[in-house]
Amino acid sequence: MLVGYQSWAFPSNPMILSTAVIGGPMEGRGPLADEFDLLHSDLRMQQKSWEQAERMLLDETCAKAIEKAGLSKDNITFFIAGDLMNQIISSSFAARTLSMPYLGIFGACSTSMEGLALASLMIDADSARYVMTGTVSHNAAAEKHYRYPTEYGAQKPPTAQWTVTAGGAAIVTANDGSGNHPIVTRATVGRVIDMGLTDPFNMGAAMAPAAFDTLVSHFRDFDLAYDYYDLIITGDLGKVGHRILLDLCEQHDVPVPRDRFKDAGMMVYGDIPDVWSGGSGCGCSASVAYGYVQRQLREGRVNRVLMVATGALLSPISYQQKETIPCIAHAAAMERGEGRKS
Amino acid sequence: MLVGYQSWAFPSNPMILSTAVIGGPMEGRGPLADEFDLLHSDLRMQQKSWEQAERMLLDETCAKAIEKAGLSKDNITFFIAGDLMNQIISSSFAARTLSMPYLGIFGACSTSMEGLALASLMIDADSARYVMTGTVSHNAAAEKHYRYPTEYGAQKPPTAQWTVTAGGAAIVTANDGSGNHPIVTRATVGRVIDMGLTDPFNMGAAMAPAAFDTLVSHFRDFDLAYDYYDLIITGDLGKVGHRILLDLCEQHDVPVPRDRFKDAGMMVYGDIPDVWSGGSGCGCSASVAYGYVQRQLREGRVNRVLMVATGALLSPISYQQKETIPCIAHAAAMERGEGRKS
Repeated sequence: MLVGYQSWAFPSNPMILSTAVIGGPMEGRGPLADEFDLLHSDLRMQQKSWEQAERMLLDETCAKAIEKAGLSKDNITFFIAGDLMNQIISSSFAARTLSMPYLGIFGACSTSMEGLALASLMIDADSARYVMTGTVSHNAAAEKHYRYPTEYGAQKPPTAQWTVTAGGAAIVTANDGSGNHPIVTRATVGRVIDMGLTDPFNMGAAMAPAAFDTLVSHFRDFDLAYDYYDLIITGDLGKVGHRILLDLCEQHDVPVPRDRFKDAGMMVYGDIPDVWSGGSGCGCSASVAYGYVQRQLREGRVNRVLMVATGALLSPISYQQKETIPCIAHAAAMERGEGRKS
Repeated sequence: MLVGYQSWAFPSNPMILSTAVIGGPMEGRGPLADEFDLLHSDLRMQQKSWEQAERMLLDETCAKAIEKAGLSKDNITFFIAGDLMNQIISSSFAARTLSMPYLGIFGACSTSMEGLALASLMIDADSARYVMTGTVSHNAAAEKHYRYPTEYGAQKPPTAQWTVTAGGAAIVTANDGSGNHPIVTRATVGRVIDMGLTDPFNMGAAMAPAAFDTLVSHFRDFDLAYDYYDLIITGDLGKVGHRILLDLCEQHDVPVPRDRFKDAGMMVYGDIPDVWSGGSGCGCSASVAYGYVQRQLREGRVNRVLMVATGALLSPISYQQKETIPCIAHAAAMERGEGRKS
C-alpha cells in the first residue's frame, strides 16, 4: 500500500521466516562473526575463480535459508536477487541452480533492501506464497572488477572501503502468527542522488546524501516520531560516510537520536585494521540485516529496526569515462514479530 | 494476485496510460519505422560515446512517455528500469535525470516485461499512482561490451543477431475507465533455463527453451485455451530461435495456432539484410511492445496480445570463463482496454 510519496506500508506484516548469512575469512575476524551461519576460511572457497567463489557463496546461502525455513526449493514462489558483478551473473547462476521463477534486480550495495521491499510487497499483495531474496559480494571478485587486481598491491586512501565477502538471503511469507519471526512493516524506495563526487575510493561520502534523502523521506511519508526506531542501520557508509550522515542530520534539523544510528560497514569489521573506512558491498548490509538484526529482533533486544541500505550505482566504465557516481538508498523496517499477526 | 505457480493476475486491469519508443538509423529502415515516436539518423546521437548515446536515448524516451501521458515527472511514483550495460548504468543515469524513486532491474532482453509485470503488480496492489518502466539498448554500445568493437570488422555467423538501438518506456496507472488505453491483465515470471549452449552468436537457440517454458507455464497457470491470444510475440528469438520454439511446441503438443506466433526480433527488421537472424537487445521487445502492440490494441486490430520477452543472462566475463548461457523469459498479457474497467 502506497504511503506518502515513495513508501509502502505492509499492513499484513509479512514475516521473515528464515535468513541465512555466510561469510569469508575477514568476516570471521570481525565482531559479528557469531552472526554468520558459516564462515569460509579460504577466500577462494575451492573454486577456480573469484567469480565462481562468489556464485557458490550465493548458492549455499540460499540453500541454507531454505533449509532453515524447513522448506524445499519447490516451495519458493519467486527468487529476487542481484549482485555487483556485470549483468548480475552470480544471481542468475544461483537462479539457474535453484530453478525457481526469478526476478533480477540491481541496486549495487542497496540490493538487499530493494529485494526485501519487493518481496514484502508481493507477500502483502497476496502475490506469492514464499519469496526468497538474496544478494552476495566477494572481496576479490569486486576488487578485480571495480578497481585493481589485488595482485598489483596498490595502496588505498583511508576513505576506501573493504568489500565484504558474504551472501545473505531471507525468505518472506504471509504472517500466520506462528513462531517468533521478525516482520517487515514498511519500506521506502530511494531516489538517485548524485552530489558530483567521482572518487570510487570514497563511496561513503558519495552515498551519505542518498541515505539522508531516503531517511528523511521515510519519516515524512509515515509521519513517524524521530525516535520511533530503536536502531537505524545505514550502510555501507563506513566511518567517513557515517560521519557525513550525522552532520547532514544535524544541519537539516533531523532529530534522530545520535545513538540510534549504526552503520553496517562499521559493524561488520569493528576495529579490524586494513579495512580503512569499513565494509562495503552487497553482502555488507545483507549480512548485518539477515544476521545481527534478526537475532536482535528474535531475542527481543530491540523492537524496531530501520535498515537503510545504500548503493553506489557506478560501473567501471562510467568511472573510466569520468562520470560522477549516482547513489541510492532503499529502506525497510523490520520489527519484532512475536504475537503480532496482521 | 498469485495464480498457479508463477503468475500474477491483475483483476483491477491496470492501464498503460502512455508509451514511447525512440530508435536509431537501422530501426528506421525496418517495417516498424512508423511505430517509433522518433528515429535518430545518427547512431552517435551527437554524444561523445556509445554509452552516452544509449543513456540519452533512455532519457528522451522517458521524457516522451511522460509528455504523452500529460504528466510531469513529479507525478511518477516509481521508475523501474534496466538495460544491458554493466551495472545497468544507462538506467541509473536516467533515474538520476528523472529524480524519481527508482528500482533497478536486470533481465537482459527480457527486462521490458519484467518491468511491466512489476509495474502492473504495484498498480494492482494500490502501491503506486503512476509507475514508469523503461529499458534501452544501443547497437554499438552492446557490440563494444559484449562482442568485438565494431571497428574490428569481424564477420558473424548467420545465427547472430543485431542489437536494436531503441528505448522503450510505458507508464502504468490504475484503470479509471477513461480513454482507450490497453490494459495489463496477466504476467508470468520466468525460470532460468540453461540448455548448455555457450555460443553468444546463437542466442536465439539458447533462449527458445526459456520462451517455451514460460509460455507453457502461462497457459497452465491460467488454464487458458491455447488460442486465447490473438498474437503471441516472443523475442528477441530471431529467425533461428523462432523456428526452434515452433518445433518445441510441436514436439510437446502445445497447440497454439502457428500463425499466432510472431517474434520481435524478426518484426523489427523484416527483410533488411545485414541483421542475420534478426534483432535483439532490451530495446527489441520493448520497442515492439510499446510501439506496434500499443497501436494494434488501440486501433482494435487485435484484442489480446501475450508478450514473451526473452533474455540471455550472460556477461562477457561468464562467456570468457566458458560458462553456458542462462536464459529467461518473462511474459505479460496486454489486452484491448476500451470500456473495460476493473
